[in-house]
Amino acid sequence: MTVNDDTICAVATRPGGALGIVRVSGPEAIRLTDSIFRAASGHPLASAAPYTLSFGQIVDADGSIVDEVLISVFRAPHSFTGQDSTEISCHGSAYILQKVSQLLISKGCRQAEPGEYTQRAFLAGKMDLSQAEAVADLIASTSAASHRLAMNQMKGGFSRELRNLRDQLLQFTSLIELELDFSEEDVEFADRSQLEQLAQQIDQIIGRLADSFSTGDAIRNGVPVAIIGETNTGKSTLLNQLLHDDRALVSDIQGTTRDSIEDTTTIGGVLFRFIDTAGLRQTTDAVESMGIERSYRKAREASIILWMTDASHPVDEATRQTISELSQGKHLITIHNKCDDPASAPAPTDSEVWISAKYGYGMEALGDLLVKAAAIPQISEQDVIVTNLRHYESLVKAQECIKRVRQGLTDRISGDFLSQDIRQCIHHLSTITGDITTDDVLGNIFQHFCIGK
Amino acid sequence: MTVNDDTICAVATRPGGALGIVRVSGPEAIRLTDSIFRAASGHPLASAAPYTLSFGQIVDADGSIVDEVLISVFRAPHSFTGQDSTEISCHGSAYILQKVSQLLISKGCRQAEPGEYTQRAFLAGKMDLSQAEAVADLIASTSAASHRLAMNQMKGGFSRELRNLRDQLLQFTSLIELELDFSEEDVEFADRSQLEQLAQQIDQIIGRLADSFSTGDAIRNGVPVAIIGETNTGKSTLLNQLLHDDRALVSDIQGTTRDSIEDTTTIGGVLFRFIDTAGLRQTTDAVESMGIERSYRKAREASIILWMTDASHPVDEATRQTISELSQGKHLITIHNKCDDPASAPAPTDSEVWISAKYGYGMEALGDLLVKAAAIPQISEQDVIVTNLRHYESLVKAQECIKRVRQGLTDRISGDFLSQDIRQCIHHLSTITGDITTDDVLGNIFQHFCIGK
Repeated sequence: MTVNDDTICAVATRPGGALGIVRVSGPEAIRLTDSIFRAASGHPLASAAPYTLSFGQIVDADGSIVDEVLISVFRAPHSFTGQDSTEISCHGSAYILQKVSQLLISKGCRQAEPGEYTQRAFLAGKMDLSQAEAVADLIASTSAASHRLAMNQMKGGFSRELRNLRDQLLQFTSLIELELDFSEEDVEFADRSQLEQLAQQIDQIIGRLADSFSTGDAIRNGVPVAIIGETNTGKSTLLNQLLHDDRALVSDIQGTTRDSIEDTTTIGGVLFRFIDTAGLRQTTDAVESMGIERSYRKAREASIILWMTDASHPVDEATRQTISELSQGKHLITIHNKCDDPASAPAPTDSEVWISAKYGYGMEALGDLLVKAAAIPQISEQDVIVTNLRHYESLVKAQECIKRVRQGLTDRISGDFLSQDIRQCIHHLSTITGDITTDDVLGNIFQHFCIGK
Repeated sequence: MTVNDDTICAVATRPGGALGIVRVSGPEAIRLTDSIFRAASGHPLASAAPYTLSFGQIVDADGSIVDEVLISVFRAPHSFTGQDSTEISCHGSAYILQKVSQLLISKGCRQAEPGEYTQRAFLAGKMDLSQAEAVADLIASTSAASHRLAMNQMKGGFSRELRNLRDQLLQFTSLIELELDFSEEDVEFADRSQLEQLAQQIDQIIGRLADSFSTGDAIRNGVPVAIIGETNTGKSTLLNQLLHDDRALVSDIQGTTRDSIEDTTTIGGVLFRFIDTAGLRQTTDAVESMGIERSYRKAREASIILWMTDASHPVDEATRQTISELSQGKHLITIHNKCDDPASAPAPTDSEVWISAKYGYGMEALGDLLVKAAAIPQISEQDVIVTNLRHYESLVKAQECIKRVRQGLTDRISGDFLSQDIRQCIHHLSTITGDITTDDVLGNIFQHFCIGK
């Protein structure tokens, strides 16, 4: 288990705003904060009641004033991390925030690792692992839907559902294990058809949760849309049109929270992730072929395919064939671009739209088709939607186990084999909430948090 | 006077960090915050003691949870603005911060204008105008020196100095005005030589303050350095070398606080502002001539000139002439670039250095020469340094007045003319501290603040 008995500090806000916060957590948090603080009241923080604010100055080693601050004091266990903590609210200058951290470190604090505050909250039993992960999602949330998902998860709806599942599985396995104790007598305490029913029910619930991931992922990361077509049909122009309105906002947020080079934008309240691809064309050039192969691969990850065609040119049969293969099981929207005379363009259908990417004509109709194809359901506060790849993978593994159990019941295999698969299923579900975990798993999760959280 | 009896709110941190703060200030601050808050304790903020924190949830109109938050409560007059205030500390997501603001606005808050919190603090008499301006400087401070200047100013050292000056000027004018009352009797209450001595002393103090601006401006905005030379001597390569180390940091900060397209970097603890110029060369092309003329103008603003030469080519006489003219009254450092064999390069002198911009050779020696040429004095906590152009301009005007007074005393002009100039001098000094101000002046100052401050 990760050691968390030292005192950590970190800047918890992005520098450059009017205000900024440095957080301190650990057994020595209050004493160390006091050592760089000169309270206006003259009273040290050590004597401050929890949940109160103290006004004063942060002072340098040579006594010069670094900033005027307000310090919040929290005492174990009534804090986010469950430890003694302080939050130093100062001016938001990068220099000041760094200086305050440096002073704390010079007094004995350790610079916090990414996500270490939330990790401490998890280790103190303040939240389970899936709730801790929701904290990071909440901070990264950029739309009403992604915010709602993160908030539902943080409130513990998902955890409750998992706990119910585990309870059912434990009941299941205890019935079977009871049998084992009496195995020589060849009795069957558990009614096999009742067991089958229970296994089916658990299978369904896990399946529903796992299936919700495609929705959750689309909401959190955007509905993946591949734009494909022959060269010079105007794919890049269309992409620019689609991203036009809030590109600045998007890149600002991206720069801080993810590395993706794909562009996202919100249309009709739905987040889309656009994947630009190389132009399709028949080629014997090896390098170009590789580019086109990559385009195919990307297109296969998308759930919607925008097929760009030039309305003024006939489509070649090989391309039509390729598109038809690529769009198997996906929403295909055919775009007839370069309809530079809106008056003569046909009305959009359910899967076709006539536009001019250059002049921006037909973009609204295309937006409507995209939102319809995305088919993102309305999420209510009660819905449990899986948004996290790690959770999804655990659910898939858990489902494999429960399917083996169902098969085992059909094949009437021995109770100890059944029990083993049920235990395995419980194990996978427990890794989601962190009831079972390892330092490796924890390290991997929290390293993707930002510092200060 | 600007109305400040409504309740304002604004996001006070840069979105994207772990935590974020929304501030509310005004007579209804506590009631309006309460209207979107569900306290974990069940007690409304209205019943919270000042300087305490309340834990709970921000809830949407439909009752859904926006975030779990900590709210600080302040009551007039014991707050930054002197008004009832709250600070809502939530997660740092752009979405959440915006949502909390929107909820407050829907309940009756007004979105704060840039600098409106500090303006309210000024209007409430919490600080004078030069201290209010120091708040913005403090937030923008990026180096120990610029931080110290802003902190000195915020602590009121400059204000005290100005108040002393005003007291002396008032004493001066009252002596003269006393004479006027008895003017028919042709008495001179004030000893003219004593008056002359006082005027000279005031002139000196104002002059010292105005002179400190070049240091203050260099610390705050960087020592202006122009890089000039013939085309193809490697000016851009040198600039890249100089900015290499912390360009990312620099542009990150610039993007948030200023519009300048000049690049700044810190060398040996001193902030430099590099001005790249078009290559000098004899030309008859009108457009190119304009570019070169612009280079000359920029070079004239610089206090240090880096003259780039190609060590492997002779310098043309016309260029030498031009450089010699441009560097009148400035520090000139001659750089012999393209010394690609370090072993054979001469040792640097006080004004010459041999480098290879391409391979980075000789950059340390150049850095040393730059720091020496910048000659930035060490700033102590007691030093009063003017950093603000508005203050500098007022000081220059005040000095013109006091110089007229001195001339008037020499010319033995009548007391009422003297008094008029003294009053004018007091007026200019009063605009710095804001004892005399107009809505226009205030508007102009605070619009350059960030929102939330």
